[in-house]
Amino acid sequence: MNQNQHEEASQKQTIILCTGNKNKLKEFIQIMGDRFHIDSEPVDLPELQGPPLQIAKEKALLAYEKIGKACVTEDTSLCFNALNGMPGPYVKWFLEAAGPEGLSKILDGFEDKTGYAQCILSYMGPELKEPIQFVGQTQGVIVRPRGPGHFGWDPIFQPDGYTETYAEMDKDVKNKISHRLKAIQKFIDHFLVN
Amino acid sequence: MNQNQHEEASQKQTIILCTGNKNKLKEFIQIMGDRFHIDSEPVDLPELQGPPLQIAKEKALLAYEKIGKACVTEDTSLCFNALNGMPGPYVKWFLEAAGPEGLSKILDGFEDKTGYAQCILSYMGPELKEPIQFVGQTQGVIVRPRGPGHFGWDPIFQPDGYTETYAEMDKDVKNKISHRLKAIQKFIDHFLVN
Repeated sequence: MNQNQHEEASQKQTIILCTGNKNKLKEFIQIMGDRFHIDSEPVDLPELQGPPLQIAKEKALLAYEKIGKACVTEDTSLCFNALNGMPGPYVKWFLEAAGPEGLSKILDGFEDKTGYAQCILSYMGPELKEPIQFVGQTQGVIVRPRGPGHFGWDPIFQPDGYTETYAEMDKDVKNKISHRLKAIQKFIDHFLVN
Repeated sequence: MNQNQHEEASQKQTIILCTGNKNKLKEFIQIMGDRFHIDSEPVDLPELQGPPLQIAKEKALLAYEKIGKACVTEDTSLCFNALNGMPGPYVKWFLEAAGPEGLSKILDGFEDKTGYAQCILSYMGPELKEPIQFVGQTQGVIVRPRGPGHFGWDPIFQPDGYTETYAEMDKDVKNKISHRLKAIQKFIDHFLVN
């Protein structure tokens, strides 16, 4: 590292990613590491009920209260259009209770099988009064589970323009079209302009 | 009121029911007024996500923190057995998003249409470290909406042993078999013994 690089590194803003997931941290560093010094903290944060942006906002405020440094929280939803966005932020409880198969069967009585995966990144820092939020969405259809079942509802979400579910896809392909990447890109765009 | 009655009244413990609903207050007074002095406060309480008892417990603790007096909070769920208890505590969001018709259609893909209505009363007072909770359940089946649609999911819940939904029933009949009454009865039993 030469003198310039040293100065650059020390000027980088530090952002704490609120997660215990080292893979998520790696992904953030890969995408945003040039501009930010990214670290992570496995903060245990209660989640409220309510509209998705509100849930995410409250969580970010709590995270910032706990950590005391600029931080980012992530909220993921799977929203069914036939149910006007439900199960949305509650999808993890449905998945836990009924599994991917049960979750997909919820739509059997409805013609409309479309839905979207949503990621909300909420950034809160000392310079802000309220978190700034970045929403990424990927449209698709809800199908019966296909592919490995390691990642939550990935086996039942087939993004538009693809014949594979998130779970069946090559990870690199998924990461390029994912709701998370879209939210991360908005996050970066914001900080490049501001 | 004679002297004895006066003394009795002044010895009655006051419990605050956390609700802005005057009908709920009336019902509580009707059932428990002999033993307690019941009042109400319309406290605005955030609700967490999680297991129903946990959600209810946290809400009662928050209520007590706000009010500073012995108080009772009420949490209602509609649980589908095919979905291992979901939508449960999130039913109000589903109702808001998809209406009673949409909510009932969730079970179209499942053979098992059974479910239960659940009421959790959580009591927190100065003598306690943690809220005491009383759970009332009424078993039934989920049907397409029938009857007036004024009370949430009442039109889609038909209690076992009846051919009418909660919404179609005579109010007195409903109140006698309701999940709320069962929780209230457990509450009273507890305080009669203790």
